[in-house]
Formats: sequence, structure tokens, C-alpha cells
Amino acid sequence: MHEFQLIHRYFSKLSNKNKSSLYLNDDVFFDKSKKLVVSVDTYVEGIHFIHFKKPDLVIKKIIRSSISDIICKGVKPKYYFVSGSGNKKTFSAKNLKKISKSLEQEQNKYSIFLCGGDTVYSNKLSFTVTSIGFSNKIIFRNNAKLNDDIYVTGNLGDSFMGLNVLKKKINTDSSLNKYFKSKYYLPNLHLKLCNKLQMFANTSIDISDGLITDLEKLTNKQKFSYKLNLENIPISKNLNKLLIQKKLDKISYISQGDDYQILFTASSSKSRIINKTAKSLGIKISKIGKICSNLQKSQIIDKKGNKIAINTKGYSHKF
Amino acid sequence: MHEFQLIHRYFSKLSNKNKSSLYLNDDVFFDKSKKLVVSVDTYVEGIHFIHFKKPDLVIKKIIRSSISDIICKGVKPKYYFVSGSGNKKTFSAKNLKKISKSLEQEQNKYSIFLCGGDTVYSNKLSFTVTSIGFSNKIIFRNNAKLNDDIYVTGNLGDSFMGLNVLKKKINTDSSLNKYFKSKYYLPNLHLKLCNKLQMFANTSIDISDGLITDLEKLTNKQKFSYKLNLENIPISKNLNKLLIQKKLDKISYISQGDDYQILFTASSSKSRIINKTAKSLGIKISKIGKICSNLQKSQIIDKKGNKIAINTKGYSHKF
Repeated sequence: MHEFQLIHRYFSKLSNKNKSSLYLNDDVFFDKSKKLVVSVDTYVEGIHFIHFKKPDLVIKKIIRSSISDIICKGVKPKYYFVSGSGNKKTFSAKNLKKISKSLEQEQNKYSIFLCGGDTVYSNKLSFTVTSIGFSNKIIFRNNAKLNDDIYVTGNLGDSFMGLNVLKKKINTDSSLNKYFKSKYYLPNLHLKLCNKLQMFANTSIDISDGLITDLEKLTNKQKFSYKLNLENIPISKNLNKLLIQKKLDKISYISQGDDYQILFTASSSKSRIINKTAKSLGIKISKIGKICSNLQKSQIIDKKGNKIAINTKGYSHKF
Repeated sequence: MHEFQLIHRYFSKLSNKNKSSLYLNDDVFFDKSKKLVVSVDTYVEGIHFIHFKKPDLVIKKIIRSSISDIICKGVKPKYYFVSGSGNKKTFSAKNLKKISKSLEQEQNKYSIFLCGGDTVYSNKLSFTVTSIGFSNKIIFRNNAKLNDDIYVTGNLGDSFMGLNVLKKKINTDSSLNKYFKSKYYLPNLHLKLCNKLQMFANTSIDISDGLITDLEKLTNKQKFSYKLNLENIPISKNLNKLLIQKKLDKISYISQGDDYQILFTASSSKSRIINKTAKSLGIKISKIGKICSNLQKSQIIDKKGNKIAINTKGYSHKF
């Protein structure tokens, strides 16, 4: 059973009495009266990160993944709590020093504060991160409008290529190897976009499970379909170069998740302000498609106008 | 290295810039300006609970343990988030149904709401619970005054006896077995005491690791000692009966933790209002000792006036 089906079947009724939880159907919990925004996520070794040979990088990725949920709702994260389960080896003095240093760097980069947590003994390494922000309003899921443009920040696919390099499934020259690995470990979050996003986005989500999976999550309660132009889905020059060199399909790389870019929809009337914001903040924002009526099927179109089968479903925890 | 040394050495500096975190030296995080109170705790199978044969009871205990941190600060918990790591077996449909039902019962009992969380795959079963309350003020640790009386709610030791019964280390008649097991799984939290506690308590903590360990945590930054009267440390009639029957020492049972009773100190001038509150709410509150100057050593005195060696240090996670 998929994670979200499981949540839905057994737990959504428990939150029904409380509208703030968004019926467990959003990236965050939001209490409007308290202006409180909360995200809770668990990261397990072997699933959410390959191994713990680079604790300094793993911990950075985990923190970014957590605050990304808050940022994509147009809210600045302020506090975070880390609960780590590990053993003597994973939480050695050497590793703890590295973790502490990484957390300090993330705190400075994103203006967040460690506020508590827990450390417990377990042979299975995992971290649960609770992130908190404050805001009068957030950008909800399931609030797309018919004919909205679909946008995405930054580039997609670099992180998945980095994972392939780390797993030694793909090898290229050392500088490209380094580039992709760094994109896997250190997603570039757009904190500066937070305040602006609420000016134009109707609905938003961060891409953690994959472009298609997250786009479908974004509008899962709405009776819409979507049309994406493969050509417009942004990838880095490095990824483009490598795809050509290795004769790999773009479609197989842009929807595997771990990108932590913001996917949002906006009315076509907002197109000018979006471009202006992108320019002034120096953030790449690409228009990649449109929200359509559900009279037609969702589709991805390549540069020749051919439909591409949608089968790249990204990542979901199965039980 | 003990958990709190570990936290202190590597992580307290990260929270130094932010006074709300209480330098990671309290049960909760408190942001006065936002009136926000947060507790995060992780519970691992084999450490914090024996096994998962009774998912309905385990989940209740976990939730109570988490909100106990908020309640002992004189604050009503409002929201909770559960992040569970488990596999197909532990998160079977049957177990999820039981978990869901238990959560519903706890929600009704303590007026709390499930607001989110995460479910991830792991062969090691663990839960991280984030609980949130709202308050203008909280009762801090390390705020005892010289000559304060030391109080504790309810009874101590029943839970530890229950653990022994569950582990088959102790056996008695079936009704007593049932009584102690129930005390282990279902600690009785004093939600009604929340609002009153702030009227008289100078400092407070909940007893999770053991009376002595938690008393020492309660005043760990203060230069005080304490004097406890063993005779006054409250135990149930059932525990008293069993201790006599099995010729067991009281001292070995009252400081093993998992009691989730509130330990607090108050000026002797508050003694009347404390007794009145206890009576009106129907909550047992016992005066068990005094906060003393550190010119003398901490001590426990038995009914004959003899000093008892303090060696029952309760529970701390070692790495």
C-alpha cells in the first residue's frame, strides 16, 4: 500500500475535527489562528540516504529537505528539531562534531535555530526533523485554477544523476562527478523566493518524490489534468551534456525526485511579475506546462509534438 | 557518554543564540513571543517499549509520554504529530486499525489532535512524537528555591513493577498482574492540574527516567542538594502489598522511571493551596522532601532516620 493511501485510510479521520491539519493532505500543518506552520519528516539510512559515510553532507540534505516543505508554501522556516536514532559508531565523537558543524552552517545559511530533539540508541540509523515557521497564510495544495501555467524553479534531474554517480551506475569525468554528487547532497533552496511566492502562486509543492508524482499530489483532490512540454522542463547544461554523451533520455531523469525545487501554478496574468521576480532574485523559474480540464488526459509532449507515456512515477514508500 | 552530556557537548552551542530553546536543557522548547511550547521524543522498540505485541497499548503509552512533557510544564497539549518507522508486519492493516483506534481514544481523553507526521519503511520499529501546546508562560527547570518543599503527584513504582511482570521477572495473582501491566502501559496524566500547577510550582519535570535522576535533572544548574523521606514517597496499596509479600525493598522500585508523574518544588507557604488543589481535583499530591543548601550532601532518610545510599540512578541512553 502506498504511503498516502495508508495515511488516508487510517489516520485522516483523526484530523477531521481540526481543519488546520489540512486533513493530512498537504506538505505542512498550518494553524491560521496561531500563525503556525509545521513539517515533520523521517529519514532512514538505505532509503532516504544511501549511507552515513559523509555525515556532514547527509545531515545538510536532511535539514534542507525538511525546511523545503515550509519554504515551498511561501513561508520562512525559523526553528528545527532533530531526533536521531543511531549507535556508538554512527554517533561517534568524530561524526557528532561533523554533524554539529554542518548544522551550524545550515543555521547561518537559512537563518534557522536548533531548538531541541532527542538522541536514542538504535542499530538502524534514522533522523526525524520537525521544522517550524510562522505566517498569516500559506500556499495550499489543491488550489490550482483551470488554465493555470505550471512553473518550476531551478533545474531538475541533477540530483538523480548524482545518486547514479554515487551508486557507481554512471561515471563521467571527475569534475562532472563532483558536480552531480554535490547537487544530490546539497539542493539549492530558494529562501529569497518565500515572501514573493505568495504574490503569484495559486498552489505549490516541493519536488521530493518526482515531478510527475508531486504534480499529481499537488492537485489530487481537484478534477484537472495537466499538459507538460518536455522541452521546457529545465535541466542544467551539465546534465544536458551528459545525456547527449551517454545517449540517455531526458524523460528518465527529470521525474525521479530529490530535486527540492518548487513546483507551482499561477494565472497567466502573473507571467510578467514571475519573470520580473525571477530576474531580480537571480532564480531560474521555468514555465513547463498548463493545468487543463479533466476532459482530456494528462500528457507530456516532446519537441516534435509527440505524446510521451507517463510512467515515471517517482518515489513512494510501499508497505 | 550519557545522552545529556552528548547533547551538551555538541549541540547546545547551536541553540545559544536563541534563548527559547532553554539551551536544550529543559523538557520542552518555549518561544515566549509566539507562546509556543514544543516537545520532541523518539521511542524505539526494545528500548522504550519491550515489543509491539500490543500496538494499541504501546501507542497510547508513547502519546502519553510525549504530552506528559508539556503537561508537567503547566501547559495543555493541543497538537501532536507521529512519525512511524516500521515494516509490513508492524504496520499491517490490523495493527494500523488498532493504532488509529488508540489514537482516537487518546484524542478524546486529552483533547489533542493528530496534525501530521510521516510513515517510512524500516525493519527497526520506532516512533517520533512531536507535541505542541500554547501558553504565555511555562514552569522552567532549574528554578527551585532554597528550602522549597519537593512534591510528587500520584504513585511511583507501579510502572516498573508492571515492566517486571511483563518481563516475567515477577509473578503474582492475575488481578495484580493486570493492575501493574496496566500501570506500565497507561500512565495516568494529570491534565486537570495543568492550569493550577503554575500557581504554586517553582520548578517542575515529569518522571520518565526515575525519581532521583529526574530530581537531579530538575536542578542540575543550581547549587542545591535535596533531602527525601522514603516513608513519604507515595506508592500504591497494591505495590505496598506486593513489596511486603515478596520481601522487596521500596527504594528499588520508586526510582526506576516510566512513572510519568509530575515532580515539582514549591515554597512552604504554598502548602495549603497545594493540598486544597489536590483535594478539589481528586489528585494525590505528596510532599516527599526538601531542597537544601549544597553545604550538605543529598540524602534519602528511611523511617528510622537512617540514611540510604543513593545509587538508583534510573535510566539514561548511553552511546
